[in-house]
Amino acid sequence: MRPTVYHIPVCPFSQRLEILLELKGLRKAVAFNVVDITQPRSPELLAKSRGSTALPILETEDGRVVKESLVILGYLEDRFPEPLVAQADPYRRAVENMLIAMEGDVTTAGYRFVMNRDEKSRDQYAAAMEAQYRRLDDFLRWQSPGSTFLFDEFALAEVVFTPLFMRFWFIEYYEGLDIPEELTRLRRWREACVSHPAAQQVTREEVVKLYFDYAMGAGNGALPAGRSVSSFAFKPHWTQRPWPPRQKWGDAATDADLGLN
Amino acid sequence: MRPTVYHIPVCPFSQRLEILLELKGLRKAVAFNVVDITQPRSPELLAKSRGSTALPILETEDGRVVKESLVILGYLEDRFPEPLVAQADPYRRAVENMLIAMEGDVTTAGYRFVMNRDEKSRDQYAAAMEAQYRRLDDFLRWQSPGSTFLFDEFALAEVVFTPLFMRFWFIEYYEGLDIPEELTRLRRWREACVSHPAAQQVTREEVVKLYFDYAMGAGNGALPAGRSVSSFAFKPHWTQRPWPPRQKWGDAATDADLGLN
Repeated sequence: MRPTVYHIPVCPFSQRLEILLELKGLRKAVAFNVVDITQPRSPELLAKSRGSTALPILETEDGRVVKESLVILGYLEDRFPEPLVAQADPYRRAVENMLIAMEGDVTTAGYRFVMNRDEKSRDQYAAAMEAQYRRLDDFLRWQSPGSTFLFDEFALAEVVFTPLFMRFWFIEYYEGLDIPEELTRLRRWREACVSHPAAQQVTREEVVKLYFDYAMGAGNGALPAGRSVSSFAFKPHWTQRPWPPRQKWGDAATDADLGLN
Repeated sequence: MRPTVYHIPVCPFSQRLEILLELKGLRKAVAFNVVDITQPRSPELLAKSRGSTALPILETEDGRVVKESLVILGYLEDRFPEPLVAQADPYRRAVENMLIAMEGDVTTAGYRFVMNRDEKSRDQYAAAMEAQYRRLDDFLRWQSPGSTFLFDEFALAEVVFTPLFMRFWFIEYYEGLDIPEELTRLRRWREACVSHPAAQQVTREEVVKLYFDYAMGAGNGALPAGRSVSSFAFKPHWTQRPWPPRQKWGDAATDADLGLN
C-alpha cells in the first residue's frame, strides 16, 4: 500500500508532485490515479475530498486525505525528507516561499486569459498576464540576478512553477502571447525549468491539444457548445489527433476538426 | 541588532508575528516599528520593500528583506525553532496547512464586506462571508470534531486565524453579522482563540475605532470624502475618542463626530 494521488490528466498541480518525487528518486513511492473528468465524479472520490471536485488529492496509506498541491508537496517533503528539495537555510527558504507565494496570482492570470470568451477584453487579460510575468522577472532580478534557477539548482520554486510554464504553452498557442523578450531573467529561468530532466511528464503538443476546450471557455472537462466529445477524452488518444486551430474566435472547431470522433 | 518588522497599526498580519513570538517566549527577539500609514511611505521603506506598499515586511540583521506574513512566520519558526509552534507530525502539519490555505479567501471576504459601499450589494457580501464561516466550520468538524483548537493547543493555525477573528469585530459592529449560531464548532474555536493569553495585542474597542475608515470604503490610511484626519491617526489616541456610529450608510460621521480633531 502506497499513498495515492487522484488527479486529472495533464493537471499542472499534480505534475508538481511527480516532479518532486522524481527529484527525490522516489517517483514510485506514490501511486497516481487518473480521474476521467469528462465523467461525473464518483461518490467514493467525493467522500474522500469532502465534497470538493478540486484535484489533486492525496490519500495516505491509512485512508486520510490531504488536499491542495502546495500542502501535498510539504507533506511529501516531510514524509520523504531525503533529499530535501526545499532550501535548508532560513533566509533562502523565505526567498523560495516569497516566490512560491506568487504562484496563485500567476495561475489565475493564465487560466482567466486562455478561458476568456469576450474578444473585446482580450488585451486586458493579456496585460494582466504580462504584469505577472513582469513581477516574476522583477523578483528574480531582485533575489537572484546572476543565476539561472532561483538558487543553484532546480528546487522547490522550480517544482511549483515549471508545470505552469508548461501549461502556458496554451497561451502562446491560442493567444499568441509569450513572456516578453526583454524579461530575459524570467526567460532564462523558464527555459531551464521546462528542459529539466525531472520535469518531462508532459509535452507541448499534449498540453495544446488537451486544453483546447479551455480556449473555448470550458474548464474541468465541461463540453463547449456544439461538441459531444471533450478535448480531455482519453480516446481518441491525443497523439492520434491533429493540432487544433490556433484561432479561438469565430467559428469553433467541431469534434471532427479536432479528431475527436 | 535584531530583526525588525515594519507594520501598520493594528495590522492583523503583523499581529500573527507577535503572537508567534509570544508563544515562543521571544517577543523581544524582534523589533516592531510602526509605520504611519496616514503619511506617504518613506523612500527608505519603499526601497526595502522593492516598491510595494504592502506591510508587514521583516528586515534581517544584515539588511535582507522578507515579505508576506505567512512567509515571515515560517522564517521566524526556522530562525527560532525552540519551541516549534507548527505541528511536527507530517499528517498533522498537512492538516494545519490545509486550514491555513483557507486564510486568503477568509481575509478577502471580510475586508471586501466591511469596505463595500454599495448598500444594494450588502446581502451578497454577507452571504460570501457566511460561506467562508461555513467552510471553516466544516473543516474543523472534518478534521477535529471533538477538540477546541485544531489540535491539542493554540498553535500555528491559531496564530494565523486569531488576528482575523479579532479584525472581524468590525464586521459584527458595522455590518451586524457574526458567525452564525449553528456553527458551534467554529464558534468554540474562535472563542478559545481570541481569549488566549498570547493573543492580547489588540482590543475590540481599538479595532472598531481604528477601522472606521474601512467601513467608509477607505483602506490603508486613505481619507474618506469630507474628512481631514484618518481613523488610523496616532493622535488623538483611540482611547480618547468616542465609539463611532455603527451605521455605515447615510450621513457619514465627521472628524468631530469621531473625536479626531
